[in-house]
Amino acid sequence: MAGNSIGELFRVTTFGESHGNAVGGIIDGCPPNLKIDYNFIDNLLLRRATGKSFFESERKEDDKVMFLSGLSENDMTLGTPLAFYVANKDVADNTYEDLKDIYRPSHADFTYEKKYGIRDYRGGGRASARETVARVVAGAVAMMYLVKNGIHIRTYTSQVGPYKYNEDSYLPDFKKVDKSPLFCPDIELSERMINYLNRMKREKDTTGGVVACVITGVQAGLGEPVFDKLQAELAKSMMSIPSAKGFEYGMGFKSASMKGSEHNDPFVTDIDNKNNTVKYTTSTNNAGGILGGISNGQDIFFKVAFKPPSSIGIPQQTIDNKGNPKSIEIKGKFDVCVIPRVLPVVEAMAAIVIVDHLLRFNSLHTVSNKNK
Amino acid sequence: MAGNSIGELFRVTTFGESHGNAVGGIIDGCPPNLKIDYNFIDNLLLRRATGKSFFESERKEDDKVMFLSGLSENDMTLGTPLAFYVANKDVADNTYEDLKDIYRPSHADFTYEKKYGIRDYRGGGRASARETVARVVAGAVAMMYLVKNGIHIRTYTSQVGPYKYNEDSYLPDFKKVDKSPLFCPDIELSERMINYLNRMKREKDTTGGVVACVITGVQAGLGEPVFDKLQAELAKSMMSIPSAKGFEYGMGFKSASMKGSEHNDPFVTDIDNKNNTVKYTTSTNNAGGILGGISNGQDIFFKVAFKPPSSIGIPQQTIDNKGNPKSIEIKGKFDVCVIPRVLPVVEAMAAIVIVDHLLRFNSLHTVSNKNK
Amino acid sequence: MAGNSIGELFRVTTFGESHGNAVGGIIDGCPPNLKIDYNFIDNLLLRRATGKSFFESERKEDDKVMFLSGLSENDMTLGTPLAFYVANKDVADNTYEDLKDIYRPSHADFTYEKKYGIRDYRGGGRASARETVARVVAGAVAMMYLVKNGIHIRTYTSQVGPYKYNEDSYLPDFKKVDKSPLFCPDIELSERMINYLNRMKREKDTTGGVVACVITGVQAGLGEPVFDKLQAELAKSMMSIPSAKGFEYGMGFKSASMKGSEHNDPFVTDIDNKNNTVKYTTSTNNAGGILGGISNGQDIFFKVAFKPPSSIGIPQQTIDNKGNPKSIEIKGKFDVCVIPRVLPVVEAMAAIVIVDHLLRFNSLHTVSNKNK
Amino acid sequence: MAGNSIGELFRVTTFGESHGNAVGGIIDGCPPNLKIDYNFIDNLLLRRATGKSFFESERKEDDKVMFLSGLSENDMTLGTPLAFYVANKDVADNTYEDLKDIYRPSHADFTYEKKYGIRDYRGGGRASARETVARVVAGAVAMMYLVKNGIHIRTYTSQVGPYKYNEDSYLPDFKKVDKSPLFCPDIELSERMINYLNRMKREKDTTGGVVACVITGVQAGLGEPVFDKLQAELAKSMMSIPSAKGFEYGMGFKSASMKGSEHNDPFVTDIDNKNNTVKYTTSTNNAGGILGGISNGQDIFFKVAFKPPSSIGIPQQTIDNKGNPKSIEIKGKFDVCVIPRVLPVVEAMAAIVIVDHLLRFNSLHTVSNKNK
Repeated sequence: MAGNSIGELFRVTTFGESHGNAVGGIIDGCPPNLKIDYNFIDNLLLRRATGKSFFESERKEDDKVMFLSGLSENDMTLGTPLAFYVANKDVADNTYEDLKDIYRPSHADFTYEKKYGIRDYRGGGRASARETVARVVAGAVAMMYLVKNGIHIRTYTSQVGPYKYNEDSYLPDFKKVDKSPLFCPDIELSERMINYLNRMKREKDTTGGVVACVITGVQAGLGEPVFDKLQAELAKSMMSIPSAKGFEYGMGFKSASMKGSEHNDPFVTDIDNKNNTVKYTTSTNNAGGILGGISNGQDIFFKVAFKPPSSIGIPQQTIDNKGNPKSIEIKGKFDVCVIPRVLPVVEAMAAIVIVDHLLRFNSLHTVSNKNK
Repeated sequence: MAGNSIGELFRVTTFGESHGNAVGGIIDGCPPNLKIDYNFIDNLLLRRATGKSFFESERKEDDKVMFLSGLSENDMTLGTPLAFYVANKDVADNTYEDLKDIYRPSHADFTYEKKYGIRDYRGGGRASARETVARVVAGAVAMMYLVKNGIHIRTYTSQVGPYKYNEDSYLPDFKKVDKSPLFCPDIELSERMINYLNRMKREKDTTGGVVACVITGVQAGLGEPVFDKLQAELAKSMMSIPSAKGFEYGMGFKSASMKGSEHNDPFVTDIDNKNNTVKYTTSTNNAGGILGGISNGQDIFFKVAFKPPSSIGIPQQTIDNKGNPKSIEIKGKFDVCVIPRVLPVVEAMAAIVIVDHLLRFNSLHTVSNKNK
Repeated sequence: MAGNSIGELFRVTTFGESHGNAVGGIIDGCPPNLKIDYNFIDNLLLRRATGKSFFESERKEDDKVMFLSGLSENDMTLGTPLAFYVANKDVADNTYEDLKDIYRPSHADFTYEKKYGIRDYRGGGRASARETVARVVAGAVAMMYLVKNGIHIRTYTSQVGPYKYNEDSYLPDFKKVDKSPLFCPDIELSERMINYLNRMKREKDTTGGVVACVITGVQAGLGEPVFDKLQAELAKSMMSIPSAKGFEYGMGFKSASMKGSEHNDPFVTDIDNKNNTVKYTTSTNNAGGILGGISNGQDIFFKVAFKPPSSIGIPQQTIDNKGNPKSIEIKGKFDVCVIPRVLPVVEAMAAIVIVDHLLRFNSLHTVSNKNK
Repeated sequence: MAGNSIGELFRVTTFGESHGNAVGGIIDGCPPNLKIDYNFIDNLLLRRATGKSFFESERKEDDKVMFLSGLSENDMTLGTPLAFYVANKDVADNTYEDLKDIYRPSHADFTYEKKYGIRDYRGGGRASARETVARVVAGAVAMMYLVKNGIHIRTYTSQVGPYKYNEDSYLPDFKKVDKSPLFCPDIELSERMINYLNRMKREKDTTGGVVACVITGVQAGLGEPVFDKLQAELAKSMMSIPSAKGFEYGMGFKSASMKGSEHNDPFVTDIDNKNNTVKYTTSTNNAGGILGGISNGQDIFFKVAFKPPSSIGIPQQTIDNKGNPKSIEIKGKFDVCVIPRVLPVVEAMAAIVIVDHLLRFNSLHTVSNKNK
């Protein structure tokens, strides 16, 4: 019970079913005196809603956030809980009526019913990807704080179906990423991916994909061994996203076939004569920016694998809740792939984790200011 | 701060540095009336200590657990906190003296110092894999409870260096697994892996690996959407193990290149005429036993990738804590690969997560018994 | 940070400032298949808003709850988070403009500013008793579950200013309580209390009071030693109510002057021949229904003391945020006493604590039902 | 389940039964670079063991703390978990054998059995006041950190049986407190209390008492509304101490009969010409140092009421676990009153709460130091 919160000090609790009144959440522990930038939130919501492309689910999600608390008259955070919601519009219940008693393959209909003894069959209820709207809003607020602290989070598409981006480095040219409608750094590959997505669409089928994420500007020291290591918290947050099936950071699964002599990152001293600073860093970054569960000041990077969406137009065999065999053919127009709409969700979850650990780190590193 | 606990209702808090007095922990929330089987714990500790093979670190870890609380006279759990420790023996501090000021590549020396402003340089301190002893003891207690509930957790070696087990199914022949000194279901492959490990040892180098885990007997309903989904909690627990770099469940990263029509698992009715039972299940299990973050009654399976151990005998360049370049050559005899010693650690962490979610599930599904 | 949640398994997170858009909250972990009774909630909100009397603050709080999630079409709880809010109406900001820079005596203006570096001066912001609306809604949902389990929570007025109810027993005649406009079991005393409140009102002054609470029907076994003992959790929840200054249960402060031989409650066997049941209970109940932090099956009772409201009409000396002395005379019409409006808040907090511990208790006492 | 932890960032988890191997705990989140002062701990343990007087239980508790982790070679905290225990000596099991099946009046025998289905009958098991040893050790570590931050916690005896200290101020002359064997500021009263305790001892009876606590040096800003208000957290921690029956802070229950005009504390500007500082404070401190759940920079003070110990030598009627009536006469020599032994326990719990909130406060008030 009570699994709808994430974070210790920057604690996000979300709510909402696909076809209920709204999705939203509460951010408890948001630092005060942070200016809310509504455009920033709207843009992130728009990226989630449309993927900036024509591959999205055709449900119109003209999502506008509404804050109910936690802000001053001029939209500064007060340090008190920020409650927000995004209304669910375009909610046509009747399309789901005939799925009421049927367990759609690879959906959560069956498991929700087993767990709770009741389920909201309309659009998947709480199990719908619609709930990620709340993640995106909370993540957008987190990002505003991170940007003030010089921390930036970016994602790109690493794989769509069988098409994999062949990286030289974890850090692609983000100008190219921005040019690709699929946010893939390889423009040519990007087009092949689009062709593949179009083909899947014609075939009423779906496909999976992989998202890569890079976080820059994180100081050394974040992460709480031994269970709340930074990579463990990132893994949890990513694996909680609907359809996520795998997580890796640094060299990830590839590290399994590497030798220690290849994988180890030598420490070096980085002298910046212009700014007269000295930084201890590493000459390579196979670690992915985390050592022993604690950020080392290098870029943090990781990948998340997503399965193909379960809603396909092809007829499928399944059963209803009385055990009778049923053939179903899911109507409506669904996402062919979670990419690119899931990219802002990955960024949002990363932001929530990093802010939380920044605050946890801070609790140790303060000269207490006695009151005047 | 305070990242050394895992679990909500079955809450494990661990402590201990590599060369301190002891490693251990407290289990708070262990169900009462559970008989402690010391042999079971000893065996799991032995597997962690030796890997049943000759590839282990040569530190002798003749680990015996000592319980300080939570047990009745005849070793039944009381429902109160179970505190335990395993003493650190064979602790020769002086071998580490010359590493006191040096940041070993890919170790946590640098990050612990940055985080805490102080570090225990002896054997890696809290960042040593020695801390997994406490995980194994807590996991062994968890397993005792799971076995009573018909739940079994098993691991096998899926990859060592470049050698990958080519599975037909996630469920191997565990008799073969038991025969392999590396716990790999393919005996021939197992020998090639051993040869490779021997070669690495000669070269004073190390290698990575992948562990697979299968959990059978879990009922439908475990896991707490949307952030404490079962796979998210498993991912976190696995990624908190020293050297873990990747996690995937079900089809994992492979699902990214699959089509929905391939990946979806049809629901079917499984009629057992002999026992006169009807079970709703799926004809395939690409999902890996979890749908929407909740167990579906099928086997749960996942994999964890581990990097090559960072302690290699080959000379390496690095810096000391004043930024001066240093060449080091790590002495002592260290593990060539985390496999097979990490297998019981994976099992232990899985057990802790599953018990915790079993108790969380139970909180909802009880007919309250009014007191007499 | 992040102090706006209470409960482990029945977890309530609230939000809202006095003059923001709304107050509300999320209940995460509410048991599924519970029918929401809107009348029940409305009645509790009405009691909070008006105290059923003419002593209330004259702000009109025609509070209607709006649920945003967690309910099926026919208002059954789904087991998913229940989000709700009550809009803030009758919000006239300008009355507070001249208090913007002034620290009102015994209000939280100064401390919020010190803590967060910013504060919402309009009506006390988050520190306003307006936030108890969210507690009452969450508590009402908790009570619906408790009533199904045979548990009932009732309060009465034990003291107003110098007028104390002289109880023979912790369990008064609740018919008399219901007849008193101040919910005091002694009707004559009740009138003297009213006269006193009227006098305070004329004098533009305020007064304190004491609320007593009785919980019946709680089975033995609730409470989690050693820190989450039932009385400790009740104490925390009560002391978190605005203006609460003291908590005692059972004989409370009186027990300090009692002898063990007077205070001890003998165990007895209670044989019910009609229902053919045998119950182990105590012949007296000085303990207040809790032994060793765990409910013993007897009635639970406690008292909460409240200070006089800080907003008085009499001129007061204070300072502004530049340290300049200021004389203020608070306008508007405020509560003369928190009684009787605080009674449903006490009930609500008690209900939240008891449900949470009922679910925690359940996690241990379940025969796991294997799925079919 | 899992109620043996307290604190969010300075998290203390305790373990141990009265007649098990040891009592102890883990402090997770203890700030690093804190020097452990063993004498300080020993002294606090000694005060808990003997009360500096002849009124104690005659069990010899020559308690020495043993740390198992979290310390450097020269006893500096590492920021990693501090595990500690105190061995249980003088454990003679057989004295409890005849109480095995009997529910002692007002003890926790019955409720532990109802809750867990099993209980450790030896000396009360986990319900014994012996568990406070772990609180005292953790509190001693907390105090070391507080003293470095200029915060001091002191207690005195406010009541023993019918004898009440008649304070003019919450802040007594602590030199007098130190002179009294019962830590009561009124020496004459102290002697009457002692006479009363001697009388109770002769009569084989027990008595209750009240402890007062004053915390000085706490800056403004600590406490997390709305549920983790500072007084709520203090109340919980105090009410979790064995035998505690009531908590009040500031004017407490007395405030119920006060007028707002009497109770309000005017803000004033305190100009210190010598040190050239200006402090905003209050001219009175009826609030007890907390406004709106947040410390205001004034002294914090509160009282805790304790019931008479339940173990009396006078014959009592009760039942056994089969419901049969039994007469018992508890042997051994038990405490006549929890005072003065409980005073260091009150201090310890206060210290744990204050450190935790200091760290929580810090998480918000840090200029992030980017790594070099």
